[in-house]
Amino acid sequence: MTELVGNCLVAQSGGPTSVINSSVAGAVNEALNHECIEEIYGGLNGVLGILNEDLIDLAWESQQAIRGLRHTPGSALGTCRYKLRKTNDFMRILQVFQAHNIRFFFYAGGNDSQGTAAKISALARENDYELRVIGIPKTIDNDIIATDHCPGYGSVIKHISTVVREMACDHESMGQGDLVSILEVMGRNAGWIAAGASLAKRRDKPNDPPHLIYLPEVAFSTEKFLADVQRVLSRERYCMIVVGEGLVDEAGNYVHTSSSSSDAFGHAQLGGAGEYLRELIESLLGLKARTAKLGISQRAAATHASQIDSDEAYLVGQAAVYAAITGVTDKMITLVREESDHYVCNTGLANLSEVADAVKPLPVEWINEDGTSMSYQFVKYALPLIQGEVEVPEENGLPDYVRLGKTRIFRLLETHQSD
Amino acid sequence: MTELVGNCLVAQSGGPTSVINSSVAGAVNEALNHECIEEIYGGLNGVLGILNEDLIDLAWESQQAIRGLRHTPGSALGTCRYKLRKTNDFMRILQVFQAHNIRFFFYAGGNDSQGTAAKISALARENDYELRVIGIPKTIDNDIIATDHCPGYGSVIKHISTVVREMACDHESMGQGDLVSILEVMGRNAGWIAAGASLAKRRDKPNDPPHLIYLPEVAFSTEKFLADVQRVLSRERYCMIVVGEGLVDEAGNYVHTSSSSSDAFGHAQLGGAGEYLRELIESLLGLKARTAKLGISQRAAATHASQIDSDEAYLVGQAAVYAAITGVTDKMITLVREESDHYVCNTGLANLSEVADAVKPLPVEWINEDGTSMSYQFVKYALPLIQGEVEVPEENGLPDYVRLGKTRIFRLLETHQSD
Repeated sequence: MTELVGNCLVAQSGGPTSVINSSVAGAVNEALNHECIEEIYGGLNGVLGILNEDLIDLAWESQQAIRGLRHTPGSALGTCRYKLRKTNDFMRILQVFQAHNIRFFFYAGGNDSQGTAAKISALARENDYELRVIGIPKTIDNDIIATDHCPGYGSVIKHISTVVREMACDHESMGQGDLVSILEVMGRNAGWIAAGASLAKRRDKPNDPPHLIYLPEVAFSTEKFLADVQRVLSRERYCMIVVGEGLVDEAGNYVHTSSSSSDAFGHAQLGGAGEYLRELIESLLGLKARTAKLGISQRAAATHASQIDSDEAYLVGQAAVYAAITGVTDKMITLVREESDHYVCNTGLANLSEVADAVKPLPVEWINEDGTSMSYQFVKYALPLIQGEVEVPEENGLPDYVRLGKTRIFRLLETHQSD
Repeated sequence: MTELVGNCLVAQSGGPTSVINSSVAGAVNEALNHECIEEIYGGLNGVLGILNEDLIDLAWESQQAIRGLRHTPGSALGTCRYKLRKTNDFMRILQVFQAHNIRFFFYAGGNDSQGTAAKISALARENDYELRVIGIPKTIDNDIIATDHCPGYGSVIKHISTVVREMACDHESMGQGDLVSILEVMGRNAGWIAAGASLAKRRDKPNDPPHLIYLPEVAFSTEKFLADVQRVLSRERYCMIVVGEGLVDEAGNYVHTSSSSSDAFGHAQLGGAGEYLRELIESLLGLKARTAKLGISQRAAATHASQIDSDEAYLVGQAAVYAAITGVTDKMITLVREESDHYVCNTGLANLSEVADAVKPLPVEWINEDGTSMSYQFVKYALPLIQGEVEVPEENGLPDYVRLGKTRIFRLLETHQSD
């Protein structure tokens, strides 16, 4: 193999996580070690920035800024939800790569982004442009196949479990009984995130909150729901519920937008699954219920990030660069859990094209028969992922997150016309 | 003055805060120093526990548990919203105090609780029962008069400002513009909490998020709101809004339950002020808006508690005990900010009866003319209150909060009949 020499490009895509910037830091620091990588570029706002030739010089960033990426949430390079479809979009990407001699491309994202990376790679091959493409997994949704888990997932469930523990302290204080509390969390298609809230239970304390978890994997039944709540309230002074935003009825429709729910109350429901459950409890059980909805804050809660997750995010960034310079292409870095008594995780490789076409479901056998709690197998899987705290420096009482300097690379091409 | 010797009772009331337990720790530790205090009792669930003779022995708690109170949210002794009104309720309290030789009573709570403490004290005096009563201020609402600020407030605004900074990192990442993000926070009657979100702005960066803050002090106008959002979006790629739950229209009605809002959309609004603003933006501006609602989690977020706040909560607990044993009664401990270049705060005393009848408003002169941001005077007031981080120990990746052992004191009286 002749050594490939040229510039590298790192970009981020899709919804941010608390630790996606840690992967960028890992990639940059690894790239600095290898002479075959001449310049280290960042693409702003995912593929959009590549189309628009919005490139920055990551080697010009201060060491402090790159180190700060390891505790800064959001996507420091910017992100997008733009989906490459048109042929001239793909051709444009190749032109930008050629113009800037980009030979190594690292794309941090979810399933779709890995698919985009695969297509760019195929196009380069067809056009005899030597390019190594490595995907970096990233998603709070934990739904990428071939990897044991996804960087970003451990931190979001550590955050949610922390919030559940804190709310539980508050609820336990309240002297008068029959309080129902509902926490709505993300997860439009799968219950990975809501399931993670079960880690808030202490060991051997199955009756600890959250008392009930409602997942998109279990078709929602109003009758069962009301019975579940009443069962908990016959045992506890309050009932704490965690619900994934993507809760569906038996027909597969989101409960808060389905026509049956609209009929029941005479109008479409606002405010999502949590408000929907509150309305059911207040109107059908006559009990007071309170809601909280973490929204975007949950995927940005870097002050609750898991050290393991942050370290693994860094590791997959490093591994992506190392793989590319040793000749690997068309792969996504995976996390491989070793079979051992204590948690050990290494990196592996999966084919980009395989990853792109699949979604990893939450194993239904990890959901207990009651449909509202998780088995020991799930806890065994998830608990190692939330260990350790990321140290976030404070500035005047608040977290000191970094912003990149973003030194622009001169554009070499005409402005892109997408249509 | 002959020395008063007897037992003391500590109880908590109203909504919990992140640091109210720190006041209990301060009171217990101070009480241990004084021989005139023979036993240290805790009343469970505020006055309800006193009525029911639900008393525990706080001196039997482990030192580790008392130390753990300094970082544990909720009200470890339990709380209530029960309001003493009936004469036989008050007489019962006095009977319980007499039966258990309680001579020092410390009640941590807001305005109402200070009023309750004042009434109990008056009743004891009328019945020639020597009792010293000292109130300990506590509320995230920051609306108790006579004290510079209230323990609990610094921590809730540190939490909210942290969340705003984290969400801002996420929003800044998004490549496509015109994102509107709404964060609903507590504050049914005053804007103290929502105003605190302004601390998230960096120094000399008035355009930092939150871009718009809506307070109960400023009557809500839909026209102005839409213009505000459009003005921000003409300048920034996203618009981040913080809204207090108690937002009112010009008639003084909560916007999300007022008849005018019900007319506008044909049904009463669910989900509070945040969902109401989202509906306005989506239906009248045709823009996408996302909401988050912190709910009870904001007053329990001990992992974001301010060290200053926690220390001051401890201090007012200590000061309450010290005042009582030196002969003071019928007072609430206050926090007194010294006139100096750097922040120094000592304790003072205020009359319980004065405190009970008043509510401290957010000074309207601290609201800028735009009605949606806070002046430098507010920042100068609030910024010292969020300094420092409370160290919360972790157990298996999550905060390790303590539960008290709650060794019960034998009941000496018949069961209480309230009516």
